[in-house]
Amino acid sequence: MRTMAVDVVRYNSGRTVAEADQLGVEEPLEIRLGVWREGTRLYRPIVVTMRTPGDDEHLAAGFLLTEGILTEPGQISGISPWDAALPNVWRVDLARGVDVDWKRLERLTYAASSCGMCGKASIEMVAARLPPQPLAECRFRAAMLLELPQRLAESQAAFASTGSLHAAALFTAEGRLTSCFEDVGRHNAVDKLIGAEWRGGGSLRDRLMLVSGRAGFELVQKAAVAGVPAMAAVGAPSSLAVELAEAAGMTLVGFLRGQRFNIYTGAQRIET
Amino acid sequence: MRTMAVDVVRYNSGRTVAEADQLGVEEPLEIRLGVWREGTRLYRPIVVTMRTPGDDEHLAAGFLLTEGILTEPGQISGISPWDAALPNVWRVDLARGVDVDWKRLERLTYAASSCGMCGKASIEMVAARLPPQPLAECRFRAAMLLELPQRLAESQAAFASTGSLHAAALFTAEGRLTSCFEDVGRHNAVDKLIGAEWRGGGSLRDRLMLVSGRAGFELVQKAAVAGVPAMAAVGAPSSLAVELAEAAGMTLVGFLRGQRFNIYTGAQRIET
Repeated sequence: MRTMAVDVVRYNSGRTVAEADQLGVEEPLEIRLGVWREGTRLYRPIVVTMRTPGDDEHLAAGFLLTEGILTEPGQISGISPWDAALPNVWRVDLARGVDVDWKRLERLTYAASSCGMCGKASIEMVAARLPPQPLAECRFRAAMLLELPQRLAESQAAFASTGSLHAAALFTAEGRLTSCFEDVGRHNAVDKLIGAEWRGGGSLRDRLMLVSGRAGFELVQKAAVAGVPAMAAVGAPSSLAVELAEAAGMTLVGFLRGQRFNIYTGAQRIET
Repeated sequence: MRTMAVDVVRYNSGRTVAEADQLGVEEPLEIRLGVWREGTRLYRPIVVTMRTPGDDEHLAAGFLLTEGILTEPGQISGISPWDAALPNVWRVDLARGVDVDWKRLERLTYAASSCGMCGKASIEMVAARLPPQPLAECRFRAAMLLELPQRLAESQAAFASTGSLHAAALFTAEGRLTSCFEDVGRHNAVDKLIGAEWRGGGSLRDRLMLVSGRAGFELVQKAAVAGVPAMAAVGAPSSLAVELAEAAGMTLVGFLRGQRFNIYTGAQRIET
């Protein structure tokens, strides 16, 4: 399954309509590598990555090649799901006589984020880290939201010259930009933004966070854990991002462009 | 430094011109967490992330909050560079009495990809994993390149309905699409593509890889390690992506849109 249908409130030039929308599916995949040692096969989880389900065999093989762990396809004797009940865990069995440098593997792979074996477990793991108090029930006007991408662009100095930096910004309910950070990594821009406000004693609990690109699971996680009640993205959200925003009681807006946007969750915070 | 100037060959409607271009800078940052244990402070590297230098103190603080490792700014007693000679390693000192669950940290953080302490070390580490033979010196016509984004879009079924999936595709020197994969994660789409060709006995060494978004360090690394001689992106490359492509002898094209593109490295493979 590569896409998933969700209900969405579409806003366009002052009008709203409830419709179905298609999202790209995002779920964790854990890859376990099986190596022969003294007559038995030992398995070790080497990575958990958020991916769109499908072609997992190719993903596992490509990861092992492109991360420099294997060099020849013949080093693999088989790739298969770990267990029919765990479709998000795959094993890669190495041929007899093929060994890998575990120590190097530890250093090289951005190991197990281990957010769980399925989308549901990922959400439960984040839910356990959410602040105890519910997210604040502040309100943001729809017409104000439409102006935010332009305000973000005006404060995004480096993007104008490079076209390659992501931005994340915080806005008050009145639409005032309180801080903005840029980075080649979307998640880094968000961490810089939240870190600066958090340590500086700034407010996160009555702000809307705007990101310049898409809204993936990781970004919604970061906003929710920091207590930010509303997030808007210029691009699309992923399926798991929407599910997490729903579970966290957060407002999630996507495709904020021109005179339109889609509300995926927490529509009560948007005054249309 | 958030942007860096590089030399680039701009192609537009059949004409080429050499110019300077600005790129977003990408370098690894290692965060080490310092905890008091029996009267001494113990440090442990908890993450290496590719980021744009600057605001590293905020990035470190935000990461610790949003990944659920800390909850109050008072738990931090200080954030500073590890050593004046290592500007990409930062330490976060926790206040006395503040402890963290190391075991949980191990599971939660997508630990040390440890690609080195600076861009140069990152490139050297990748260089050590490159195939022994140099990348193939095949040729791709400029006019053919211009047609590839449209061919990619035609084969990208899910993007049309979601706007949220990244794509990666391989093309022959004649511009024929040989395979295409989609994923919420750019790096996953590339791993699926390379993994499928690699295990299926397909050719990677005379192909051009096209990616739907930007070209970061990680994507160039994957293509180079797999022996792909040329890569084109619809969006911008990062500074480190260009440096790695140069070191690997790979052709890197960015901003492939409409009648134009920029050649960042390996211009000899593009017939203009």
